[in-house]
Amino acid sequence: MQQNAGPLENLIDQFARFPGVGRKGATRMAYEVMGMTNEQAVALAKAIESAKTQLHRCRVCQDYTPTEVCKICASQKRDRSIICVVEGPRDIQSIERTHEYNGLYHVLHGLISPMDGIGAEQLCVKELLARLNETVKEVIMATSPTVEGEATAMYLAKLIKPLGIKTTRLAYGLPVGSSLEYADETTIFHAMQGRGEL
Amino acid sequence: MQQNAGPLENLIDQFARFPGVGRKGATRMAYEVMGMTNEQAVALAKAIESAKTQLHRCRVCQDYTPTEVCKICASQKRDRSIICVVEGPRDIQSIERTHEYNGLYHVLHGLISPMDGIGAEQLCVKELLARLNETVKEVIMATSPTVEGEATAMYLAKLIKPLGIKTTRLAYGLPVGSSLEYADETTIFHAMQGRGEL
Repeated sequence: MQQNAGPLENLIDQFARFPGVGRKGATRMAYEVMGMTNEQAVALAKAIESAKTQLHRCRVCQDYTPTEVCKICASQKRDRSIICVVEGPRDIQSIERTHEYNGLYHVLHGLISPMDGIGAEQLCVKELLARLNETVKEVIMATSPTVEGEATAMYLAKLIKPLGIKTTRLAYGLPVGSSLEYADETTIFHAMQGRGEL
Repeated sequence: MQQNAGPLENLIDQFARFPGVGRKGATRMAYEVMGMTNEQAVALAKAIESAKTQLHRCRVCQDYTPTEVCKICASQKRDRSIICVVEGPRDIQSIERTHEYNGLYHVLHGLISPMDGIGAEQLCVKELLARLNETVKEVIMATSPTVEGEATAMYLAKLIKPLGIKTTRLAYGLPVGSSLEYADETTIFHAMQGRGEL
């Protein structure tokens, strides 16, 4: 609305840049900021700047960390013979929550996507290859089961397999708690192919 | 995840305070900030602080404005005999988009909600009553058709009617483009009651 051009419109524009936040959501957020006390608004603004200034990528796995090497990479309790390759830092959190994996991670910071003009050179691929010494016995591709995720996994497998390192990928199948009725054919095909004995 | 405690967790907490933004959405937003350039992050932080420092409530209608009196209240083209009462500034934008209303507005900055401990004294009610001089012929209640919206409209109507000012409310009925099949009985009841000749 013309009346609010300026600071409010600018704030809405800023919020609307977030993925998954539409114009309506951004407007809602901007008005929420207007309803905050000055202290709350300053705390939010400061949190944004602090996260950017205090965190950077881990020298080894490329996850965000306040230290030079992140806690997982520095830990003596993690299995250093396995590296799980993920698209983004969020995926590490998802996998960690399962308490099932005790190896290391590597964050690509994206997926190969020719449609968006993103090639392997824009991802942290050379940083991954640099880590593949004789300690590493397996590299798990934990990219999403999408066209881009698959292409990236295939591309990396082609580079890693010749080094004599086992390359695996996460299993495809029915998501737990879902109904077969709502599963697409490709998922059912993979679930059928990967069926296990009871 | 323990590895990212500190600046990132703090930023996620800040984003999670926005209405409609869950923990997952906040995490996504925080990582989006991490992916920004420093300049972009600073621009976002600055936009938050600028909106808070440069905007305040219009002395008349209580909408946010960089000037003492907002554009609508200051405009000579608006009909000063009608005031449309809304819950929040966002609602002004929604009504303005219809290009159907040319009167003034009044923002309550909330609704009466005994459950949440919000009474009339926490809303901009006295500012509304102070505006009701002999120029004002009608006050339109444009609060939401919810329990709180209704209660607030009823409360205000009781205060305004004795002053000899016409008090109206927005019509209830079927939302345009919707299917009768999905409408609830109360809406259909109101749509039936308010039916108009073709």
